[in-house]
Amino acid sequence: MKIGILGGGQLGRMLIQEALKYDDEFYTLDPNADCSCANISFFTKGDFNEKQAVIDFGKDKDVVSIEIEHVNVEALQELEKQGVKVIPNSAIIKTIQQKILQKLFYEEHEIPSPAFQIILSAEEEIIIDYPFVQKLNTGGYDGKGVQIIKDESDFNNLWDQPSILENLVDIDKELSLIIAKNERGEIKSFPVTEMVADPKLNLLDFNISPTQISDDVQSQIDVIAAKFMKAADSDGLFAIELFLDKSGKVWVNETAPRLHNSGHQSQEGNANSQFEQFYRVLKNLPLADTSSLGFSGMLNLVGEENCSGKVKYEGLENVLKLADAYVHLYGKTETKPGRKMGHINVLSDSRDELLEQLIHIKSLVKVVAV
Amino acid sequence: MKIGILGGGQLGRMLIQEALKYDDEFYTLDPNADCSCANISFFTKGDFNEKQAVIDFGKDKDVVSIEIEHVNVEALQELEKQGVKVIPNSAIIKTIQQKILQKLFYEEHEIPSPAFQIILSAEEEIIIDYPFVQKLNTGGYDGKGVQIIKDESDFNNLWDQPSILENLVDIDKELSLIIAKNERGEIKSFPVTEMVADPKLNLLDFNISPTQISDDVQSQIDVIAAKFMKAADSDGLFAIELFLDKSGKVWVNETAPRLHNSGHQSQEGNANSQFEQFYRVLKNLPLADTSSLGFSGMLNLVGEENCSGKVKYEGLENVLKLADAYVHLYGKTETKPGRKMGHINVLSDSRDELLEQLIHIKSLVKVVAV
Repeated sequence: MKIGILGGGQLGRMLIQEALKYDDEFYTLDPNADCSCANISFFTKGDFNEKQAVIDFGKDKDVVSIEIEHVNVEALQELEKQGVKVIPNSAIIKTIQQKILQKLFYEEHEIPSPAFQIILSAEEEIIIDYPFVQKLNTGGYDGKGVQIIKDESDFNNLWDQPSILENLVDIDKELSLIIAKNERGEIKSFPVTEMVADPKLNLLDFNISPTQISDDVQSQIDVIAAKFMKAADSDGLFAIELFLDKSGKVWVNETAPRLHNSGHQSQEGNANSQFEQFYRVLKNLPLADTSSLGFSGMLNLVGEENCSGKVKYEGLENVLKLADAYVHLYGKTETKPGRKMGHINVLSDSRDELLEQLIHIKSLVKVVAV
Repeated sequence: MKIGILGGGQLGRMLIQEALKYDDEFYTLDPNADCSCANISFFTKGDFNEKQAVIDFGKDKDVVSIEIEHVNVEALQELEKQGVKVIPNSAIIKTIQQKILQKLFYEEHEIPSPAFQIILSAEEEIIIDYPFVQKLNTGGYDGKGVQIIKDESDFNNLWDQPSILENLVDIDKELSLIIAKNERGEIKSFPVTEMVADPKLNLLDFNISPTQISDDVQSQIDVIAAKFMKAADSDGLFAIELFLDKSGKVWVNETAPRLHNSGHQSQEGNANSQFEQFYRVLKNLPLADTSSLGFSGMLNLVGEENCSGKVKYEGLENVLKLADAYVHLYGKTETKPGRKMGHINVLSDSRDELLEQLIHIKSLVKVVAV
């Protein structure tokens, strides 16, 4: 089967890596000829935001999918008209791509998400209470396009672009649910993952799965997931990012219509990974068992501040000496401050030990330039 | 790092798949442009038995290795002279490549292997007792080049080529040990694997790991492994194929200086796979934890008799519905009778359940032509 993926980054790379267990041909489209997928797939250099480039790329594929949601949706609509299978479908990609449409989608389908105001420019009257989060309608990615406006004195920092202004949630935990649906109608989720703040560094950069939540919280999440999948009405693999507030209520922060950083620990931590599951969605195969094999965690390897150039992973050998630690690099030759270069998965029988080990490993390794 | 592999078959493919977790460049040399590695590595079409082809391929690599032992050894010697790292070294590949040299190597180093006679042609007087196994000096692979000569009436079938004639062992179990050594001198083996005869079909086609053996048998194997690694005096990953006879004595059948079919279940069955371990050998990284995660087993998917042409895997979907079963296909488009097209790994907490599940899965799936 000819599987076309818009985007050639690490998510595509790990998908293709997993799918090398099978016999399909993977094609990728990316503007960067040096991207993570270039040498392991049939690669086309091109812009996934250009309509014609996407149509040309997709028209002879059995299925076209994405590993980044910022792609040309009109092209996907055109491919669907031509009879090409597009997963997830163009409608849900379009909805999720635009934060305003995404928020209205939650509202319409009674999926709890923080109260909000839509603004099209900074001229509009602010009726939402301070402090609030401003999320740009388009172009947000990996924390970009999002800022907190603390109070009226901070008002001048408001971006003058179409945005969502959203109430802050009094967060107890940040959670994530990876859920998949195939064409035959099977739906299966992974155990809920928690994004943990490093108590020393105060950075949100560990995932731990499964999280420990009450039955009530789990059932709120189940209801949200069911509503989302019904409303989305699309095959695909989705990451629903959630806030659990201090009163015990679950809110949807946002959803990604694709493989997600919060699912990486499934590579060794679950019976099957999010990459295996997504592959099965693309082929409409029976969905895979997602059981946890114990506690698993993930830490991102990101480029250090003030380091740009040819990447060097300091201390990585010390990590390779550890049992239950699994290094995943993304085949990127150049590091930049904050660039995601890889991740490390860790397994443990206990949540406390896992967290300890994640903190230890984080202290061992640094992503610098040569 | 530029890693060159002679051969582009499934062993190379699964190595590259595993190593996509890291940042190296893999180069493969194979005469078949449609081989399993062609589209996932920097591929050179060429014959690994031709001296110049191997030298040209290897001279600019940081390390050159093999995924098949039938390669041009003179070229590897030349590359070593030029300062290219060759793993395993040319001397041990040469020894293992020729069954006569391999037997003499065992004899010289007091590694127990069945009594034998060397013949250079069928003219020679047979002094070994019937029945015996004839193994051609070169060209044997995957069961080819090996036959049993039952008695004097069978003598006319003797191949008229340089061979080893070897006493039959009264086999209780066929075992295999995968063992690795890196340049820094670390040596680590996987738990011993057992090749199990399917009680219904009487075919040797399941691996089970770990096997259940006595301490005495384990220590015989440990002694053999230590002697072998000392004598081989080479970095690399090796598969030592063993017979346990009915009196409880362990014999070496033969050794492969490479990744091996008997190690495939390590992909899901062990903390790290033979492919991860071999990658670490190639890079001289700390060797990985090889602990078993429970019982794991493997069955080969081989082309059915009377089926040649474009491959179709009948019943594979039923396997994908099972928990604890992992399908691995080799990216081969054409099936032939007996051709290894893939394998399925199975996990279980119990040896009996594992065997039952392997037999069940074997009944579910057939490799046929469209």
